[in-house]
Amino acid sequence: MTEAVRTVDLNSDMGEGFGSYRMGDDDAILKIVTSANVACGFHAGDPDIMARTFRTAKERGVAIGAHPGYADLWGFGRRVIPHSTGEIERFVAYQIGAAQALATYAGHKITYVKAHGALGNLSAADADVARAVARAVSAVDPSLILLCIARSEQVRAAEEARLQARHEIFADRAYTDEGQLVSRSLPGAVIHDPDEASARIVRMVSDGAIETASGKRLKTPIDSICVHSDTPTAVALAGQVRSALEAGGIAVKNFA
Amino acid sequence: MTEAVRTVDLNSDMGEGFGSYRMGDDDAILKIVTSANVACGFHAGDPDIMARTFRTAKERGVAIGAHPGYADLWGFGRRVIPHSTGEIERFVAYQIGAAQALATYAGHKITYVKAHGALGNLSAADADVARAVARAVSAVDPSLILLCIARSEQVRAAEEARLQARHEIFADRAYTDEGQLVSRSLPGAVIHDPDEASARIVRMVSDGAIETASGKRLKTPIDSICVHSDTPTAVALAGQVRSALEAGGIAVKNFA
Amino acid sequence: MTEAVRTVDLNSDMGEGFGSYRMGDDDAILKIVTSANVACGFHAGDPDIMARTFRTAKERGVAIGAHPGYADLWGFGRRVIPHSTGEIERFVAYQIGAAQALATYAGHKITYVKAHGALGNLSAADADVARAVARAVSAVDPSLILLCIARSEQVRAAEEARLQARHEIFADRAYTDEGQLVSRSLPGAVIHDPDEASARIVRMVSDGAIETASGKRLKTPIDSICVHSDTPTAVALAGQVRSALEAGGIAVKNFA
Amino acid sequence: MTEAVRTVDLNSDMGEGFGSYRMGDDDAILKIVTSANVACGFHAGDPDIMARTFRTAKERGVAIGAHPGYADLWGFGRRVIPHSTGEIERFVAYQIGAAQALATYAGHKITYVKAHGALGNLSAADADVARAVARAVSAVDPSLILLCIARSEQVRAAEEARLQARHEIFADRAYTDEGQLVSRSLPGAVIHDPDEASARIVRMVSDGAIETASGKRLKTPIDSICVHSDTPTAVALAGQVRSALEAGGIAVKNFA
Repeated sequence: MTEAVRTVDLNSDMGEGFGSYRMGDDDAILKIVTSANVACGFHAGDPDIMARTFRTAKERGVAIGAHPGYADLWGFGRRVIPHSTGEIERFVAYQIGAAQALATYAGHKITYVKAHGALGNLSAADADVARAVARAVSAVDPSLILLCIARSEQVRAAEEARLQARHEIFADRAYTDEGQLVSRSLPGAVIHDPDEASARIVRMVSDGAIETASGKRLKTPIDSICVHSDTPTAVALAGQVRSALEAGGIAVKNFA
Repeated sequence: MTEAVRTVDLNSDMGEGFGSYRMGDDDAILKIVTSANVACGFHAGDPDIMARTFRTAKERGVAIGAHPGYADLWGFGRRVIPHSTGEIERFVAYQIGAAQALATYAGHKITYVKAHGALGNLSAADADVARAVARAVSAVDPSLILLCIARSEQVRAAEEARLQARHEIFADRAYTDEGQLVSRSLPGAVIHDPDEASARIVRMVSDGAIETASGKRLKTPIDSICVHSDTPTAVALAGQVRSALEAGGIAVKNFA
Repeated sequence: MTEAVRTVDLNSDMGEGFGSYRMGDDDAILKIVTSANVACGFHAGDPDIMARTFRTAKERGVAIGAHPGYADLWGFGRRVIPHSTGEIERFVAYQIGAAQALATYAGHKITYVKAHGALGNLSAADADVARAVARAVSAVDPSLILLCIARSEQVRAAEEARLQARHEIFADRAYTDEGQLVSRSLPGAVIHDPDEASARIVRMVSDGAIETASGKRLKTPIDSICVHSDTPTAVALAGQVRSALEAGGIAVKNFA
Repeated sequence: MTEAVRTVDLNSDMGEGFGSYRMGDDDAILKIVTSANVACGFHAGDPDIMARTFRTAKERGVAIGAHPGYADLWGFGRRVIPHSTGEIERFVAYQIGAAQALATYAGHKITYVKAHGALGNLSAADADVARAVARAVSAVDPSLILLCIARSEQVRAAEEARLQARHEIFADRAYTDEGQLVSRSLPGAVIHDPDEASARIVRMVSDGAIETASGKRLKTPIDSICVHSDTPTAVALAGQVRSALEAGGIAVKNFA
């Protein structure tokens, strides 16, 4: 009798430069993660960076996702720009299509979509925005997977839109007992110790549960772990998380 | 024995607003033309305008084409922005994909690509730029038709890239004996009299030849006639050209 | 003994095009108003349009104000873009300086500042934002006048910053009993009948009081009347308001 | 009898980030140079970065210049964007005004203007463009100094516009016998050895002459040396150039 090997995906935001600007060490991160969420030119990214990122991801066997965000280069997609849900549908559809075309151009294929920054956070909390994102994905290509923040409105919206959902947790962010991220304005929001972060991740994936700051366990499917790419310690943490997972008997591979 | 009816397409640039801005009377023009070249958000257009234009075109039975241009909203795509041919490939691919996704979202389908403004003019004259545009189209979707300025480098590039080409002439622009447009800085470059323009167009389509300012005739396939959408007399001229064609026994319908 | 003649200013948003785009009939409006609020390139406007508007205003004897707004061309400055008050100070200062330089270049002089669109509305209601705008004006040039929505936080902020304030009311907008504009989502928010709007304006200026939708009168200094420039009836309404004021014995002239 | 001490200025491009993006180690460079050419928001820079850079420069006793460039964030101002000379005048005037206002806001003062990137290179070679830049400076504030590439059209244009000119040479770029920079596409265009670059700079300042790649000496006033800020070795080279100058008995101080 063979036992199923537990697997999990590692995802990170990539291609977040613009023109002459660079953000994070994409080359190093692309050696560690199994999924690259690639900026689509609205909050970051441009056609050249997108194509280059897709090509490198292909060479490394890394899956690629469209990572649409608000049209807000100045704010890097981290501000909620007022939009109707219809407008959100359309700018998300636009960005997915642009990413698909450049992926095809670069010899790779978009297999999933993940909302970026403020659009990601808002769609995690707001059912209407979550539905707008899901409708956009579904309208453009219903075979695309929606990478969702675990236990968020994104998951319900993906189900409503009959999209395949995958569930992600964050490598270095603390959770409330309601399963939300602890606000960055509160102490303990970010787990800075890579040993602690890695050990926690292995426990969460092994248990199939989010571990909250108070020690509660919240059951959830966990398909992917989000690691940062744009902090000074990003590469080190991503590498350590991957090593800890593999040492814990968990295979790191893409969910698609 | 049935006789083949001669047909020709009428195309016009559409969806050239941005945010609160509008350019031309799209609603009126969409009642006349059979193909709409839709701006893709770089020199004009935004996701909302694109989706709305695609939807209206669908309702009216008008074919839609992606109309990529330089990333130059300030200059409306009418300035040559320095780019390598590789960069041109990638920003054209990006815009085609964005347009395809929004067309699908709006229930319509992109069937062709036409380069806008300065990119159109440069690719008509410069073989390398023409090839870059054709490669982008071919890489994204080789079933897309390339709408080419008749007798230009675009035609040769489409052939090299094994794309279907369609050939367009201009309703109100004079031609040199080499088959180029007379420069707008020269007298007689634009034919302002709608009667004269319409009669000339009927002759050119009937003869299968460009009529030059000096009266020479240059044989060329003519699949489409480009009419303007953004001048005060645009709607009137487009309507008159269409009426004259039909009165001359030429059916006006899309080339796709 | 001479009697003081009552005077009032007429202001309107001008120079709201961008590149090839135009918004409203500036040329016609500049023949009617006495103050032009000129967009500074963030929500609308560009250096060429700004300089041209300043030059025309100079020829017509129209005063000019910097009209800073959010960096939001897509939304035309009508959306609240999330910003700290410090950021607001700096982008307002930037836009004022740009306008001053181009006014000097065009042979005219900026004498006042008025916040545009969502920045105007937010600073009318939110004391912190009002103070940020006032601090920016004061830091760049304390001799500049702040054109304020009557009875709003802008007035208090101008006083705190020791700026000269001028108070404006709207030609065609209904007021609540609290002196606020009736929301555009409610019936009766906009007074569409130019006769009614004009008569009301003459009463308000003569009485030195806002007339609310319910008929209450709220005392306030009234230095200027804001007329729109971007609606189909804008020119007609502005002209009628001016005629009615003059017929009512009120001189229309700039406040500076 | 006292002997005049020879002095020279060190200038560098600063504040070239945008939003979340950074370019170069401004903090380190601002400890070395005596003049900061600050991007004005068109090719790089934003109001927050500008104000912060002005404030730090003030604290360090570093003079500040407006550093206008093409409206080309994607190309970082390194591409020639087609513009009429009138348009150049206006966008340069706009940027100078914005910089002046934010400098005042930050408690510092713009004392000079230097054209950035492609605008700098084009105005060095093209007399019409040089005059457009000089006219913009002169129109906005004739007390501003124009920092010119030595022996270029900029110098003549400054004279014509009755502006004070200062002359700069480059720390690590080779010169042709005509006094132009050797094209970056040619071998030897950049002097990579910091010892060689520093020694050459000391000789050039001491002699009051450009030293060409072939060993010729071209007499010219030398008021400032331009050091890069955005290469990996920028800080080290700038520091070494400064040390070498001081060791050679040349005082490093601002020209204003």
